[in-house]
Amino acid sequence: MFKSVVMRTSCFSFVLCFMLFSRNSSAQESVQLPIMPLPAAAIPGTGSLLVNHGLKVVFEGYTEPRLDRAQTRFLDILSRETGILKVPTEPSKAGKFVIKTAGPSAPVQQLGEDESYHLEVTATGVLLSAPNPLGVLHGLQTFLQLVHITPEGYSVAAVTIDDKPRFPWRGLMIDSGRHFMPLDVIRENLDGMEAVKMNVFHWHLSEDQGFRIESKTFPLLQEKGSDGLYYTQDQVRGILEYAHDRGIRVIPEFDMPGHATAWFVGYPDLASGSGPYQIERHWGVFDPAMDPTRESTYQFLDKFIGEMTALFPDAYFHIGGDECNGKEWDANPRIKEFMQGHHIKDDAGLQAYFTGRVQKLVTNHHKITVGWDEVLQPDTPRDVVIQSWRGQDSLAEAARRGYRGILSAGYYVDLNQSAADHYAVDPLVNGTATLSPEQEAHILGGEATMWTEYVTPETANGRIWPRTAVIAERLWSAQSVKDPSSMYQRLDTLSQKLAYYGLPFQSVSEQMLRRLSGYNDPGPLKVLASVVQPPRDYAREDLKSYDAFSPLNRLVDTVPPESEKAREFDELAARISAGKAAPGDWETAHRWLTLWRDNDAALQPSLEKSDLTAELVPVSRNLTHAATIGLLALDSLQKNQAISAEKQKQQLSELKELEKPEAILLDRIVPGVELLVHATKTQ
Amino acid sequence: MFKSVVMRTSCFSFVLCFMLFSRNSSAQESVQLPIMPLPAAAIPGTGSLLVNHGLKVVFEGYTEPRLDRAQTRFLDILSRETGILKVPTEPSKAGKFVIKTAGPSAPVQQLGEDESYHLEVTATGVLLSAPNPLGVLHGLQTFLQLVHITPEGYSVAAVTIDDKPRFPWRGLMIDSGRHFMPLDVIRENLDGMEAVKMNVFHWHLSEDQGFRIESKTFPLLQEKGSDGLYYTQDQVRGILEYAHDRGIRVIPEFDMPGHATAWFVGYPDLASGSGPYQIERHWGVFDPAMDPTRESTYQFLDKFIGEMTALFPDAYFHIGGDECNGKEWDANPRIKEFMQGHHIKDDAGLQAYFTGRVQKLVTNHHKITVGWDEVLQPDTPRDVVIQSWRGQDSLAEAARRGYRGILSAGYYVDLNQSAADHYAVDPLVNGTATLSPEQEAHILGGEATMWTEYVTPETANGRIWPRTAVIAERLWSAQSVKDPSSMYQRLDTLSQKLAYYGLPFQSVSEQMLRRLSGYNDPGPLKVLASVVQPPRDYAREDLKSYDAFSPLNRLVDTVPPESEKAREFDELAARISAGKAAPGDWETAHRWLTLWRDNDAALQPSLEKSDLTAELVPVSRNLTHAATIGLLALDSLQKNQAISAEKQKQQLSELKELEKPEAILLDRIVPGVELLVHATKTQ
Repeated sequence: MFKSVVMRTSCFSFVLCFMLFSRNSSAQESVQLPIMPLPAAAIPGTGSLLVNHGLKVVFEGYTEPRLDRAQTRFLDILSRETGILKVPTEPSKAGKFVIKTAGPSAPVQQLGEDESYHLEVTATGVLLSAPNPLGVLHGLQTFLQLVHITPEGYSVAAVTIDDKPRFPWRGLMIDSGRHFMPLDVIRENLDGMEAVKMNVFHWHLSEDQGFRIESKTFPLLQEKGSDGLYYTQDQVRGILEYAHDRGIRVIPEFDMPGHATAWFVGYPDLASGSGPYQIERHWGVFDPAMDPTRESTYQFLDKFIGEMTALFPDAYFHIGGDECNGKEWDANPRIKEFMQGHHIKDDAGLQAYFTGRVQKLVTNHHKITVGWDEVLQPDTPRDVVIQSWRGQDSLAEAARRGYRGILSAGYYVDLNQSAADHYAVDPLVNGTATLSPEQEAHILGGEATMWTEYVTPETANGRIWPRTAVIAERLWSAQSVKDPSSMYQRLDTLSQKLAYYGLPFQSVSEQMLRRLSGYNDPGPLKVLASVVQPPRDYAREDLKSYDAFSPLNRLVDTVPPESEKAREFDELAARISAGKAAPGDWETAHRWLTLWRDNDAALQPSLEKSDLTAELVPVSRNLTHAATIGLLALDSLQKNQAISAEKQKQQLSELKELEKPEAILLDRIVPGVELLVHATKTQ
Repeated sequence: MFKSVVMRTSCFSFVLCFMLFSRNSSAQESVQLPIMPLPAAAIPGTGSLLVNHGLKVVFEGYTEPRLDRAQTRFLDILSRETGILKVPTEPSKAGKFVIKTAGPSAPVQQLGEDESYHLEVTATGVLLSAPNPLGVLHGLQTFLQLVHITPEGYSVAAVTIDDKPRFPWRGLMIDSGRHFMPLDVIRENLDGMEAVKMNVFHWHLSEDQGFRIESKTFPLLQEKGSDGLYYTQDQVRGILEYAHDRGIRVIPEFDMPGHATAWFVGYPDLASGSGPYQIERHWGVFDPAMDPTRESTYQFLDKFIGEMTALFPDAYFHIGGDECNGKEWDANPRIKEFMQGHHIKDDAGLQAYFTGRVQKLVTNHHKITVGWDEVLQPDTPRDVVIQSWRGQDSLAEAARRGYRGILSAGYYVDLNQSAADHYAVDPLVNGTATLSPEQEAHILGGEATMWTEYVTPETANGRIWPRTAVIAERLWSAQSVKDPSSMYQRLDTLSQKLAYYGLPFQSVSEQMLRRLSGYNDPGPLKVLASVVQPPRDYAREDLKSYDAFSPLNRLVDTVPPESEKAREFDELAARISAGKAAPGDWETAHRWLTLWRDNDAALQPSLEKSDLTAELVPVSRNLTHAATIGLLALDSLQKNQAISAEKQKQQLSELKELEKPEAILLDRIVPGVELLVHATKTQ
């Protein structure tokens, strides 16, 4: 089923110089096509197509109902983007949009299917052609992103694009286990994935904190293990159809033998401990694990996997396998005895035995196993796909040994890293230097992963988007496409556009701010929110203890993982410090720092009125403190005045203190201010 | 079916003095309960109920599935409002919320059913009791609106409320004919109606521009008359269920004999002209009208009304009847002959004949007829309900003659009037002075009406809400509840809350602004948008010609019908002019006027880049002009300096010019500036 020839575009160096309006001025400057991911090849044409009067879509060649639905969706989004009415329209003035599809795609979408398309936009019309509907779906998204407002109205600059993906596996994983994610959230993310041409939705369906899908064979799984928060099989079929409509495969994950407490609430005999078990309410790695020594475990899993593989049509099936700490195994004499009897020397060996058995069950049900790094053991069958959370070295090692792999290390969007950080991670850079082309071809792509300890249905979209789009670009576009500045510019445009796809995460964030401010005008709170950021990686758990009952409605939950304003300030401070200030930089820096310095006076009085904002008192004060130092440094730099070395040392030491998180928030202007202070002359 | 005893609360003068945070400061001041509509009676208790850990809802007495769904919806909204997780929660810490329902409501909701409820909130729990589920639904909404952020977290101040509506008919009409409104929009408005306790959704389903519902008997109605934009009967049944769940009756309207062009595209024999007919693409009053002289017309309508009355369970059925200009009748010799033969002296008489015949058909199908003013003729049967678009006098006249009526004049939310204007219109004030109590009881309530010439699915919610809430209050709360200042304060809170009901009209407006500004930071455009307003009443059509194809994506479509900022500036200017400036007023006025004066410099350069914003060049310039005059006047007033009478005259004449709309937008700071200039001393 897997086509062994993995398509990958050759490095494409043609740089497109379209005229577009830049972000902060009305001056024109040349930038790349304003879309994400960038296509494999594009040649600008002459003139542009006006879409003010809508588009008349005509199908030629192969058609199917999915294409009709794609057309409806396409016109819906175009209409929302432009305010132009979908129907009725004046046919005589509408642009002609011809879609030529050569033939069908596989009934069940396959890994490695042809996803290419050819898109020609001229001043009079559009031709979109593709070997199959998958390419058509991608081409429609490209067109939507090309639509921009111009002096003549909404239009698309003429262009010819030939496009196909670099990697065949471009995924997003969502953890519905820790916090249940309602169907709406899943659908909204499938919409976002379609917009950026991702093609694998990896659905993490079971966890210590919840078993999230209806089993008809073992109903106690959801009845006892989900607090009533699970997807029925009918609902899952709805999602499968929704994803298929968007050219997205759906791969379910059932994590085992660890991360499985929720299974044991209804079926304690599956576990290695003595039970009874409760749904886990905390975050972390826990002891409960499946009992790999009893045949009844495999009989259960055989039936369960049979039921689930019948429901999910994709050829791949994910069995998890991560972070089993083995403590329940070690504590069970019967299991110890089994290990001795079978010459299994340690827990890793026992997990390998378990994985081997489960993998055979998956194979018997005609599916290919996917698992996290840990499933890779000396005798793992060659068709198992390794998903690497440990890193690129681990992925390269698997490839070297002949396994196919996908990268997730570096793509953990729950860890509040910057878009640039994710963007810099390439599945074929680092660790892969010594791979042969054949081994490289084993690396199928990657997956962004959204673990949900600190994410609710309300905040999920704002954590996943827009940063996931840069991972989508990394996996679709040529390796040479890697300029962060172009990326940020295009990401900004895409962020706005995603609102028209039903992903209005910016509005949700604004709503949450209003709520925090008690329905008042959140002005000063907004200023504070614009320059703070949650800390990266796993710092949150260390700063305050959380469990599954904790509301996630504080400022740290409201702000995006990456402060755009602070990033701009970083760049500004870097230019000024390096003596390369652009015209207006001094004035902008002064204006921003003054706003931040004075914000505390406006904000402080209202913070005490609720415990949700009371914790922000020091955060707000610290912003003023940092901005005050920043203004002093800016003044010295502008006047080219020296300050005493002692004074500088004192300021840097104060800034060091201000680097520490307060209320689980980082003051993100501190690094920029540090740059300014460092750049100050000392006597 | 109609209970003749119309409930009406006696004027309730108890003024509630809860301590709440005021809008612009952290100082405490006493205001009324922060909810809309205000309840009939409320007595404050001691302490408050914390809802930080959620609520445990317990049903006592009568239950039905609708109540379970209401509970789910209630917890959904509460969770969105607070960020508190719905389930699971810590049962030990959750507040207890007991719902006691005495018995069922009528299977098909009736006009005049008991909608009362009793709500007791204490520091430890809630008791909500009601005679039937309708009261429970209303009580849940009251509770949701009472939830506010406090220093202790989300909580509700203890209170005992006894509430019931003043009028039994509190409706919203949406015109799906001129612009088709998708099911989402209908559902969102039903959600909004539930929030403010409205109980009649009047669905205007046919117009010259579209026939919007599937008829199985006469399929050409939708096939030829809708551009494919119509509701299937299954979809309608879905809406009926959705409305019933929210305690809302649904009354369909089929407008006849005029406003019916779309019927004639498929069935030209219904019309009085010779045809063929096309779907009307312009706005206004048009000539086509049903032929009242042919028996085939009534045979058709009998079958059609039979089909529709079987679909819509409500006891009332709306036959329109407005604005038939009679021109097709006058032009048809056969009709003239018929009139002579039947001693019908004019078109009004012919329409009366038609209405009489149709009304009998409606009666034969066991429904009560509702119609616009025009259906009231000398021999109109006594059970017909008159919906008055002509005014309160017309309504009073109907009541005097023994007809029941509902008021819509003054509640046309499409006309861009202020919330205060709608709020001031009371069905029992003006024109009704001479009515006996019995005649007064014939006035059942009123309906907000949203006609959709200039409204798309995108903008509809922002035009209907939040102003419709003040009409809901007028119809629910005591007549004595009429202070505009309290109304605006509570409306502001409700506007924010409605976002959690899935009515994020503010966010939609922001999104449209971003789109207008070409995805850039819409800062200066936002400043302009905050102080302009579409002109009132029917000015738009006069200013620029529109048709059904016109995109509605300009600034005039983006801004709310009432500028909140300008309203605040009006009040500020009034205080300053009257010599009653509050502390800070001078400074605020100066800051705002300066912002507006300087805005053009920031905005102007970017306006030329699209035809959607190019029309704003004079609008932006005019704002600067008005603000410049305002600053001069403010300066003179503050320094108590006189200016020459000539100068003042010159400024007032310039301001007079600035009152005129540009790009269909009014500069709403002009009236405030005029106040300031008038207040200036002259030499």
